[in-house]
Amino acid sequence: LEQGAMRKAARMLNALQPAEIAHLLESQPPNERELVWSLVDAEYDGEILTSLNDDVREQLISQMDAGELVAAVGGLDTDDLADLIQDLPVTITSEVLKSLDQQRRERLQTALAFPEDSAGGLMNTDTVTVRPEVTLDVVMRYLRRLKDGLPDITDNLIVVNREGSYLGVLYLTDLLTHDPEETVAEAMTLAVQAIPATWGAREVATRFEQHDLVTAPVVDDSGLLLGRITVDDVMDVIREEAEHQFLGQAGLSETEDMFAPVLLSARRRALWLGVNLLTAFLAAWVIGRFEDTIQQVVALAVLMPVVASMGGIAGTQTLTLAIRGLAIGQLSSKNARWLLWKELAVAAINSVVWAVVVAAVAAYWFGDPQIALVIGVAITINLLAAALAGALLPMALERFGIDPALAGGVILTTVTDVVGFVAFLGLATLFLV
Amino acid sequence: LEQGAMRKAARMLNALQPAEIAHLLESQPPNERELVWSLVDAEYDGEILTSLNDDVREQLISQMDAGELVAAVGGLDTDDLADLIQDLPVTITSEVLKSLDQQRRERLQTALAFPEDSAGGLMNTDTVTVRPEVTLDVVMRYLRRLKDGLPDITDNLIVVNREGSYLGVLYLTDLLTHDPEETVAEAMTLAVQAIPATWGAREVATRFEQHDLVTAPVVDDSGLLLGRITVDDVMDVIREEAEHQFLGQAGLSETEDMFAPVLLSARRRALWLGVNLLTAFLAAWVIGRFEDTIQQVVALAVLMPVVASMGGIAGTQTLTLAIRGLAIGQLSSKNARWLLWKELAVAAINSVVWAVVVAAVAAYWFGDPQIALVIGVAITINLLAAALAGALLPMALERFGIDPALAGGVILTTVTDVVGFVAFLGLATLFLV
Repeated sequence: LEQGAMRKAARMLNALQPAEIAHLLESQPPNERELVWSLVDAEYDGEILTSLNDDVREQLISQMDAGELVAAVGGLDTDDLADLIQDLPVTITSEVLKSLDQQRRERLQTALAFPEDSAGGLMNTDTVTVRPEVTLDVVMRYLRRLKDGLPDITDNLIVVNREGSYLGVLYLTDLLTHDPEETVAEAMTLAVQAIPATWGAREVATRFEQHDLVTAPVVDDSGLLLGRITVDDVMDVIREEAEHQFLGQAGLSETEDMFAPVLLSARRRALWLGVNLLTAFLAAWVIGRFEDTIQQVVALAVLMPVVASMGGIAGTQTLTLAIRGLAIGQLSSKNARWLLWKELAVAAINSVVWAVVVAAVAAYWFGDPQIALVIGVAITINLLAAALAGALLPMALERFGIDPALAGGVILTTVTDVVGFVAFLGLATLFLV
Repeated sequence: LEQGAMRKAARMLNALQPAEIAHLLESQPPNERELVWSLVDAEYDGEILTSLNDDVREQLISQMDAGELVAAVGGLDTDDLADLIQDLPVTITSEVLKSLDQQRRERLQTALAFPEDSAGGLMNTDTVTVRPEVTLDVVMRYLRRLKDGLPDITDNLIVVNREGSYLGVLYLTDLLTHDPEETVAEAMTLAVQAIPATWGAREVATRFEQHDLVTAPVVDDSGLLLGRITVDDVMDVIREEAEHQFLGQAGLSETEDMFAPVLLSARRRALWLGVNLLTAFLAAWVIGRFEDTIQQVVALAVLMPVVASMGGIAGTQTLTLAIRGLAIGQLSSKNARWLLWKELAVAAINSVVWAVVVAAVAAYWFGDPQIALVIGVAITINLLAAALAGALLPMALERFGIDPALAGGVILTTVTDVVGFVAFLGLATLFLV
């Protein structure tokens, strides 16, 4: 009976798209994941592996033997194979290479020559090219003779000259609606500019979004056609970039597997906790400088987290906007000064508003107008410092090659904690004791 | 001379894609923005307006008169017009409606019948349909007679029966490679399932990503074809969803204009600062309960932010993973329990590691093994509470219809602050004084 249920489950599973099976695998705790994987038809293994996040992919690969892996990667596109092969054990990589024919090996080498997150790394080499001087009728007859049909996601044929240099694209929609006696040169579109293979993935995504592209040709420095990028891979880029920003703020990697083994997760998280502990101890050390003051006015200990946290929140708002602006290319050195002044002005207004509120609450609570004055001034100082740090940090970090999405938050809260405590406890030392 | 420079700038500007001009406008401070907008050819106004974020769009619309607006929206696709019309002043909406012909007005009404973030709201009505019984040759002759050509981003023709019910799609690639004597029924693909108009935008995006779609047909409850969704709009959905998550954590809206007027920004940010101030005062009130203890052992005031911040960091990691898991559909009530236990296990390991480190530093710093013991236990308690809150909050909030990306962070740090201070100062009161 149970075997029957298993067979039924396997049938349902294998009716899904590889990406759907990958999603299902990622949504399973480890034991169920192995069970599901064992039910998958071997012929889908390759495509599923390319759709998985790095963590889960490595886990499943580690359980496969060489024969299974070589079979799995057999039918993959060159770009997918290039991604996957870098995760395979070295011994298996050479077996895979041996199993490829000459043409596929050369294509793979082209793809491997570029970093994974560049246009060259994103591209596929399954281009269908035509020459400008032939007529559309000839093109259509040529297409009907293609024994494998056209590759998935083909919205145009790429027009190249005799040397293989990129000239333009012939949209299938134009091929179908223009007079068959026209030449390719007459019906083709020149407006689609080729993407240099060295472009970063982020630039490629922006180009696709702004020009509503479905596919785009990729060329080398001299304009020779190397391959094409398809929109499905660009959607993955947008998704991964966004996850990197979101997860990076908590010190998590975008390849994080939600159901990773406990020890692995604990080790990865520990690093981030350690970094933050250093900054927490720095803040504690700052407070320690004012032990005598706190001893005399214990209300300071009660109120000091308010000053630090208001700075942290306001600074995070500015930081988040600036990181987003950098990522989508809306913030640059040209308008950074404008943003800085704007954020300082916003901080000035909000610091006055909230300084008055906090001061009023503190005065009522502790019945001491001097404490109220000190906390009000400290909050004003900290909110201005927060705006300054939030606006300048992302660009400064990027200039030093540090990822602002990862390091920005920690550094910012260090600044707002230290400035907040020094301002509040320092002013208190000067005026209250 | 200056006029010549302006004309040159205008020429360069209008050679860009509408989405590129929109991006440029969003990257300008207010004054430069108005200048750039005045240089744009009126014929691109409509498409640029649809590409702008809500803030900037509203700002520019408020400066246009009725005639300009009616002209601007004249050439728009129905889905874009439906988005835009909801931002127009009521008086202008009726003028725009009057300017449309019967067919366009009906299409617009169809589009407006669905929420903006549903499949119906995303769809366009520019479908090209064919019947299953005709031959490919007839289809090709029909296409060549279309006077406007095929719509942008057309990878297939939609196959419907006499009643207009969706049957399947005929990919242009198949139309071009199959024998022209075949019928549409023989060459069409049945595997592309139509998307119900009531689906949410997030579901639509997942379908596109998992099935590598370029376009997808949209149907009503009874299977009648209503329109189609194109991948460019899906990319926008993915981008906006990601921005919502990232910006929402700082209490910012995804429509936030980086160069919004100072007063507008200050007012929006103030709300979030106010919410956070309430939680900061709650934490301060908790500390206030232990004033006597702090008075006697002032080292507690120095160390207490360490306990709170370690809990905040650990909890944010769990919360971020859970919010991401919910958003991409990998976390559900089925595996939530597993995640909770895993996160508690991770927290248990990390709390022991870091409790020992913090205790050792505290013992060395204050030369008091009892303080070390108290802070170690407090950190263990707070990290476990953080894991519990981080894992459960997102699902609980979603059940109550509250957006976890917006409210999760504030509630979590309230929990970790309060638990941290109560545990640390409470234990200190019991054992140190």
